[in-house]
Amino acid sequence: MNKVLHLKSRPNGLPKATDFEIIEQQIPVNNLGELLLKSIYISVDPYLRGKMSKTYSPPFELNEPVASKVVARVIDSKNESFTAGDYVIGYLNWAEYQLSNGTGLSKIDNHDASLSAYLGVLGTTGLSAYFALLDIGKPKPGDTLVVSGAAGAVGSIAGQIGKISGCRVIGIAGTDEKTELLKSKFGFDDAINYKTTPDINAAIKAVCPNGVDVYFDNVGGEISDAVINNLNNNARIAVCGSISNYNDTETQIGPRLLPLVVYKRLSIRGFLIADYADKFTEGVSQLTAWLKDGKLTYSETVMEGFDQLPEAFIGLFEGRNEGKMIVKV
Amino acid sequence: MNKVLHLKSRPNGLPKATDFEIIEQQIPVNNLGELLLKSIYISVDPYLRGKMSKTYSPPFELNEPVASKVVARVIDSKNESFTAGDYVIGYLNWAEYQLSNGTGLSKIDNHDASLSAYLGVLGTTGLSAYFALLDIGKPKPGDTLVVSGAAGAVGSIAGQIGKISGCRVIGIAGTDEKTELLKSKFGFDDAINYKTTPDINAAIKAVCPNGVDVYFDNVGGEISDAVINNLNNNARIAVCGSISNYNDTETQIGPRLLPLVVYKRLSIRGFLIADYADKFTEGVSQLTAWLKDGKLTYSETVMEGFDQLPEAFIGLFEGRNEGKMIVKV
Repeated sequence: MNKVLHLKSRPNGLPKATDFEIIEQQIPVNNLGELLLKSIYISVDPYLRGKMSKTYSPPFELNEPVASKVVARVIDSKNESFTAGDYVIGYLNWAEYQLSNGTGLSKIDNHDASLSAYLGVLGTTGLSAYFALLDIGKPKPGDTLVVSGAAGAVGSIAGQIGKISGCRVIGIAGTDEKTELLKSKFGFDDAINYKTTPDINAAIKAVCPNGVDVYFDNVGGEISDAVINNLNNNARIAVCGSISNYNDTETQIGPRLLPLVVYKRLSIRGFLIADYADKFTEGVSQLTAWLKDGKLTYSETVMEGFDQLPEAFIGLFEGRNEGKMIVKV
Repeated sequence: MNKVLHLKSRPNGLPKATDFEIIEQQIPVNNLGELLLKSIYISVDPYLRGKMSKTYSPPFELNEPVASKVVARVIDSKNESFTAGDYVIGYLNWAEYQLSNGTGLSKIDNHDASLSAYLGVLGTTGLSAYFALLDIGKPKPGDTLVVSGAAGAVGSIAGQIGKISGCRVIGIAGTDEKTELLKSKFGFDDAINYKTTPDINAAIKAVCPNGVDVYFDNVGGEISDAVINNLNNNARIAVCGSISNYNDTETQIGPRLLPLVVYKRLSIRGFLIADYADKFTEGVSQLTAWLKDGKLTYSETVMEGFDQLPEAFIGLFEGRNEGKMIVKV
């Protein structure tokens, strides 16, 4: 039998296990031109929340599969471009088995890195960190970079690229284990546990005595208010995510940002990895080189079993992941 | 006698006449290398509010003169680069007479345009509209551009450059006279009087059925909330001013912006004209060409007499100006 994960209801606030349903079906049979794929690693990402509630376009449909980047193995091929045994990556359904005509699939090998790395440091995650930091954040040697959601998949890579760019790098995360890891494993200069810090604004000021030049934001909300409060003139904010807001059921209010944009001549940009599609090859080759040189490392939280997908997704909003959240099917 | 306007106290909220003091002094005498200048036109700008309360750096000092762009005539010159009778523009004190060593002064003539135009359409005002719209707003033919504070000095020029760039242009202003003028004189496609519109969000949606691609913001606050609510994906906000916030005595709250920055991949940038100093010649020559071709027109509100300076400045926050606010000394 095959398992497929459907979106059963649009989450209201924090997603619940009952928003999803795992359907059992026959394993499909591939026709001429088609491949039968078996999922190996499924990428579990915060941005999918927006597609569940129509905030991100196109949204997922109710009673249809959720989808994301998936690493799969070709089980059977009736398509001359692929052979049984090939490993591929593509935007695929959350299913154990599925058919594909090959469109949008890329073959990968596991010589340069483990297969799961293609969902993380060598995939959309790593490329997001790379282009958002370098193209929007424009870090210069000597700049102070603050990364929120710093122990997450994108944040931990963004911080390391900040170090490679010559910045002083400060991470914000939600447990002491994570802040320790930022310093010991990822080479951040300092880290703040926002859950145990009574005054996050003062904590940022204390570790950024020269102010903040680049803010790589994955979280939004009050953490961002505090970082923004410490920005220097001409600072840049690369807005890569806003996980504190993804489960909002109504518009949140907070300090108005536009006056500061004027006073401090801030530059703020939201990030869409698809805008950089023509530079993916450049990005992957640079990330691969840094990995080989030991300048870049990464973390993964791998949950085992297709049935873990709802828990893995909900866990993102509870900070249960360290680095990239992946389900191994 | 000479008159000089001092900042007497830092305004708390809306500036009051008593925040300023006009001092009578002897007319100064120029030494070797110096010019004696007589002010003719003084530029009265919203951004000066920030320098009065230390929000903009460097701030004005208490019991020292306020300063801005001024057109002046050389009364006497002991500097070989200038001759009595020359007209100059520079960042000068709010004074009838003052000395200068010539640093930062540019000679102007009144052949291409009236002298006051060098404070407006051919000065910082026109250049701000030009660079903020083109460089930050990146208008494309067919885009919908919304301009707030549209009947103001910068807004009225930004809207016209939007039309030259092939945009559909909507202006927001605070009186029916102003909205009429936007359409009849400045060629805007439509205009909204925010003071008489019960639902500004619905009004914008009605006149922008395809959403908003570029927002040229001079005002901030609830008007900006409504425009932002109607932005398309990948929209750009050129933040040129935030006049609704300049008199705030505490941080205002409003809808959080960062989630939308992510969802809609917005690009938001604050504007500082000084960043474009190396392109001023290009900007002035383009603006002059448009003026001569009749593609660009402008409005001025000229108040007569040095003593009118406090009233002129306070009037900016009451919308008493149409186009550039200038005091003729």
